[in-house]
Amino acid sequence: MISKNELKYIQSLYHKKARDKEKLFIVEGPKMVQELLESPFTVQKVWTTQQKWLKTFPKAPIELIDEQHLAKASHLSTANEILAIAQMAEHKNPPRPAVGSFILALDGIRDPGNMGTIIRMADWFGVDRIVASPDSADIYNPKVVQSTMGSIFRTSVYYAPLEAYLANNPLTVYGALLSGEPLGSFPISVPVKEGIIVIGNESKGIRQEILPFVTQAVKIPAFGKAESLNAAMATAVLLGHFKIPSFQK
Amino acid sequence: MISKNELKYIQSLYHKKARDKEKLFIVEGPKMVQELLESPFTVQKVWTTQQKWLKTFPKAPIELIDEQHLAKASHLSTANEILAIAQMAEHKNPPRPAVGSFILALDGIRDPGNMGTIIRMADWFGVDRIVASPDSADIYNPKVVQSTMGSIFRTSVYYAPLEAYLANNPLTVYGALLSGEPLGSFPISVPVKEGIIVIGNESKGIRQEILPFVTQAVKIPAFGKAESLNAAMATAVLLGHFKIPSFQK
Repeated sequence: MISKNELKYIQSLYHKKARDKEKLFIVEGPKMVQELLESPFTVQKVWTTQQKWLKTFPKAPIELIDEQHLAKASHLSTANEILAIAQMAEHKNPPRPAVGSFILALDGIRDPGNMGTIIRMADWFGVDRIVASPDSADIYNPKVVQSTMGSIFRTSVYYAPLEAYLANNPLTVYGALLSGEPLGSFPISVPVKEGIIVIGNESKGIRQEILPFVTQAVKIPAFGKAESLNAAMATAVLLGHFKIPSFQK
Repeated sequence: MISKNELKYIQSLYHKKARDKEKLFIVEGPKMVQELLESPFTVQKVWTTQQKWLKTFPKAPIELIDEQHLAKASHLSTANEILAIAQMAEHKNPPRPAVGSFILALDGIRDPGNMGTIIRMADWFGVDRIVASPDSADIYNPKVVQSTMGSIFRTSVYYAPLEAYLANNPLTVYGALLSGEPLGSFPISVPVKEGIIVIGNESKGIRQEILPFVTQAVKIPAFGKAESLNAAMATAVLLGHFKIPSFQK
């Protein structure tokens, strides 16, 4: 069962203001909720249309509801079996950049889909942490959560002003810039074990104030006529280049 | 001015059936419409809220309309100054794979955002053509068109059954498979000048029927815990790896 008030409460969590106040976020669908239930995150409540979940996770606070109510609670175009509310990870300051860390710094990534995809890739490529400027998309936005495909439960994302974060750090700071040196034209030892890669805003790139901290400007060489790659694609190419060596006989 | 019938006609083109019947598609926003008007595509009609477009493209069939009407015609959450209707490229059979061609084969890419992003990357990395299985997303879906950021006007995309297309071809067929050899562990000469890269469906991967045509199964090595990368991100990493050499002293 789900009450009208609970429904209203869930729906309020689709807005950042309410999420930040309640320190809760929404997770939907079997794959995502299963990963949530197996993660260290605290789950406040789960609603599902399927009995089996009560058996699989007997200790979780799961209640059965009907399809119509799940559809009302859901933000997906088609509600998908199960929906959970979980506590956000505590907002902490990021650890200072240290020798041996491999860090992604996001300077104003605004699109939730890009943010989610970047978190998923960071998880794939073993990035130690993501530090996002405060104007970046909220990782607890439901679109971000869903597009991480579970990586949100395994990836450390911090929000901090990048100027202060990048100042006085011992790592090479790679910045993706159209004026950068093409990948492949400067020496790196693949797989790169440490460093900070700065990815700029989707339309404006890396802010002027951040440029002085970039110690190695890089660009993705173009072989065709497209003017740009989107931020998530650029991140994919950069992480692939930094982590996957070319074949050596 | 725009008539009620014209508005209805535009709105009908958001559906594949009408697009295929009329052989027309919709392009929105200043950047995209400018690229369209400078492309070889035949433009049927353009509506804009801004006088300046009539001066910039005096020979184009442009009419002024007010914001309310543009909003009604638009599919964007915020209508963006200009909307055009253009003729689709003629549906032709793809040229047979030939020595020296670098081809992307898409086996059931269904998500319009992935399709658009892949077209944009193909344009960036100088892919000669894309051959998509008939069940792949329609490139004239407005979401695909918009997410190509203009690359749709420069990239050759064909629809064809991949079994027939891949049979008896002289090129190495790389298939992205979880069971493949990790990138970096088999010899390729970067930048790779010819070959076919097969990208599978977002959830099911490459279909069983296509596997016999794959001559080099490849996978993207994982460094973290994510279970998968999405199809567009995998394409980004693969194209980056195939086209961008590591630094050589």
